[in-house]
Amino acid sequence: MYISQSFIPILKNNPSEAKIKSHQLMLRVGMIKQSSAGIYSWLPLGFKVMKKIEKIVREEQNKIGAQEILMPTIQSSEIWKESGRYEDYGEEMLRIKDRQNREMLYGPTNEELVTDIFRASVKSYKSLPQLLYHIQWKFRDEIRPRFGIMRCREFYMKDAYSFDISDDEALFSYNKFFISYLKTFKRLDLTAIPMAADTGPIGGNLSHEFIILAETGESKIYTDKRIFDLNSEGTNLEKKALENLRKKYEEFYSVTDEKFDKDEFEKKVSENNRLKTKGIEVGHIFYFGDKYSKPMGASVDLSGGKKDFVKMGSYGIGVSRLVGAIIEAKYDEQNEIMKWPISVAPYDVGIIPMINKNDNSALEKANKINFELKKNNIDALIDDTDENFSSKIKKMNLIGAPYQIIIGKQTDGDLIEFKEIGKETQKLDITEITNKIKELKEKN
Amino acid sequence: MYISQSFIPILKNNPSEAKIKSHQLMLRVGMIKQSSAGIYSWLPLGFKVMKKIEKIVREEQNKIGAQEILMPTIQSSEIWKESGRYEDYGEEMLRIKDRQNREMLYGPTNEELVTDIFRASVKSYKSLPQLLYHIQWKFRDEIRPRFGIMRCREFYMKDAYSFDISDDEALFSYNKFFISYLKTFKRLDLTAIPMAADTGPIGGNLSHEFIILAETGESKIYTDKRIFDLNSEGTNLEKKALENLRKKYEEFYSVTDEKFDKDEFEKKVSENNRLKTKGIEVGHIFYFGDKYSKPMGASVDLSGGKKDFVKMGSYGIGVSRLVGAIIEAKYDEQNEIMKWPISVAPYDVGIIPMINKNDNSALEKANKINFELKKNNIDALIDDTDENFSSKIKKMNLIGAPYQIIIGKQTDGDLIEFKEIGKETQKLDITEITNKIKELKEKN
Repeated sequence: MYISQSFIPILKNNPSEAKIKSHQLMLRVGMIKQSSAGIYSWLPLGFKVMKKIEKIVREEQNKIGAQEILMPTIQSSEIWKESGRYEDYGEEMLRIKDRQNREMLYGPTNEELVTDIFRASVKSYKSLPQLLYHIQWKFRDEIRPRFGIMRCREFYMKDAYSFDISDDEALFSYNKFFISYLKTFKRLDLTAIPMAADTGPIGGNLSHEFIILAETGESKIYTDKRIFDLNSEGTNLEKKALENLRKKYEEFYSVTDEKFDKDEFEKKVSENNRLKTKGIEVGHIFYFGDKYSKPMGASVDLSGGKKDFVKMGSYGIGVSRLVGAIIEAKYDEQNEIMKWPISVAPYDVGIIPMINKNDNSALEKANKINFELKKNNIDALIDDTDENFSSKIKKMNLIGAPYQIIIGKQTDGDLIEFKEIGKETQKLDITEITNKIKELKEKN
Repeated sequence: MYISQSFIPILKNNPSEAKIKSHQLMLRVGMIKQSSAGIYSWLPLGFKVMKKIEKIVREEQNKIGAQEILMPTIQSSEIWKESGRYEDYGEEMLRIKDRQNREMLYGPTNEELVTDIFRASVKSYKSLPQLLYHIQWKFRDEIRPRFGIMRCREFYMKDAYSFDISDDEALFSYNKFFISYLKTFKRLDLTAIPMAADTGPIGGNLSHEFIILAETGESKIYTDKRIFDLNSEGTNLEKKALENLRKKYEEFYSVTDEKFDKDEFEKKVSENNRLKTKGIEVGHIFYFGDKYSKPMGASVDLSGGKKDFVKMGSYGIGVSRLVGAIIEAKYDEQNEIMKWPISVAPYDVGIIPMINKNDNSALEKANKINFELKKNNIDALIDDTDENFSSKIKKMNLIGAPYQIIIGKQTDGDLIEFKEIGKETQKLDITEITNKIKELKEKN
């Protein structure tokens, strides 16, 4: 793709209204545009990143046997009255009256709606477990939306729901999402730590927030450093293995603000392992048993002839928020260099040909290289404008494709100036370049 | 996938509330569930079909150089006041007040919002043309929603917008979408005819509706039968070629109700070529020049130093509605057989093993066959329940995978009972079966 034809409106300077680096970068390189307070449009560059994140989230949900559905954004107030949350939810719920004066709302979450779907469809324990998820826009009418898409009003979220016959089975489902989340964030090149958390308006008594460290984060966290060395490698999807994985993580003290207990922290964590810092919540999982199924009458026939309410959990990942979270983790604002993980990068490579008024030879070389890259499914952005070299590099550093190819006066023969963004230039031929990028893409 | 594990809640009988066959089938096989008047959840079977349609729509947009963005569902009333449509739009617009008492609305269409994005980003004629599209939920507060997802309130739509420097260039963009729509509907195995249409609340003076024939359609159409023999094959994306393509279609009389003129119809179409019938609108394209760019001040610098308002068009495809439209076109309600085009089928094959209480051998054979199919990226649904044969066939006929594999007592050796849905059974070995399906998938 040529930059001149793309819809990537880049600003010369950092926008003054943006206080944190993800918001700055996203406005600066035209990933988003605010349309009203806390509501954004996603322009092509931002859209591409979000779609790649969505795809990874979806693949990891499918791997644990969750089935995708799609619930509407507008819900009836009736089901929220059944669960008892309609009055409780407060002003963050966007309440709407339709032309017939019916009370509707823009869903901030979907426990009620999915319970309504379940109770109409599933009658027997034989059909359990059921894991259902959807990826849909939500709305929370924040009083003070800020930090761009990190704390906005309309946001894109994956929310999943599990339905089981017993607490024991339900915890098995919970643990499937636990590992699925670890794997999802790893593919996004993020170290997200599961932390014991409060359940808030969702309810229940078991909950983990998945948090990545960031100075600009809004969650205060207290943790044993050694938890960062853990991973889920080698754990399969069997019940016992998943139990052990969660135990392994829970051995280390790791909580958010609301769960923090100073004495416990100091008792359980030796001084040099203590970490008090801030983080960004990127996922949140809950187990709440029959909190919704009981008032809403979602029961199944048991094998003995009795009935029981199903045991439910819910599992969220902030898909649009993750775009910002990755920038917070990866953007070097001092040097104005963004480096997207290749799994979600808007482009794999940026090609920067030096173009002079009367000399198009560098652009022609760029086209030839792009032709080879395309054959290998490598997606490149070519800066075909006649700006000077340093402003081109600056622009490409902000866009953040993980590799750059520079075609200058010195470029002749088969060797091409190639570099990993922010690192030293190497001279490689096109086959070496495509192999290098393909290899990295396959690993991610 | 096993039916017993899937979330496909099938009804024994046709639901009485559904008046047209797409609505009947979609409720019957659990593709959708109504959550409130005119608002539906998409369950896994319906979701899979809709996502496949979305993918085809997206690919055909990308082929003409349109770039994907994503605008929010909730818009500010301010831009609609700028264009003058806020008061005009009437009660179909879902109007919302947020907690700060700001006037918001759920977007029924996006001319204003995309014009706002354009005017903030593009300053020069050098960046034109721009073709932008998004695929997003829309809301129209119908007074009497009916026919399931065919005339509902919350619906999924692809809408694209073109920005050009002159009428002439803008018509080139218009014609790109014209061919793109013909190709999109063809890949969905639909014959959609472009018909001169009224522009309604979108405005402008050039417009085509793309309509497929259906007795249950809400659009009355008057056309010259010979238009059904036309196609876009061999037309490339050059200006002249696209002009000729549109001329070729416009040679035949073909209009919707509002544009109908009896005298003209009878003069232009010989009696035996006249067709008066009903159809379903699946796409609608508009050219409206500076209707929005002028009041909203979306102008660009011209080469001579002057400025001019950009010339715009808009181009919609009803993605969720297409699911229903395909059913209206393909469902044989007499025999209760649905046959999805393979390009959008929820599954490629249904496998029906005869399972007795003490004999699992047919299910084991089904698993072996499924293993081979999977290796070839063929997606099968296995009916692993212990229902009787005829009810299994009935169910699979409604689900509508285009092929069926039947594993009964007679199945032994390498030959498998295989049939195209609704046709005669053949005996083929697994290699012949996979080749047959792969071949069809590649063509579509």
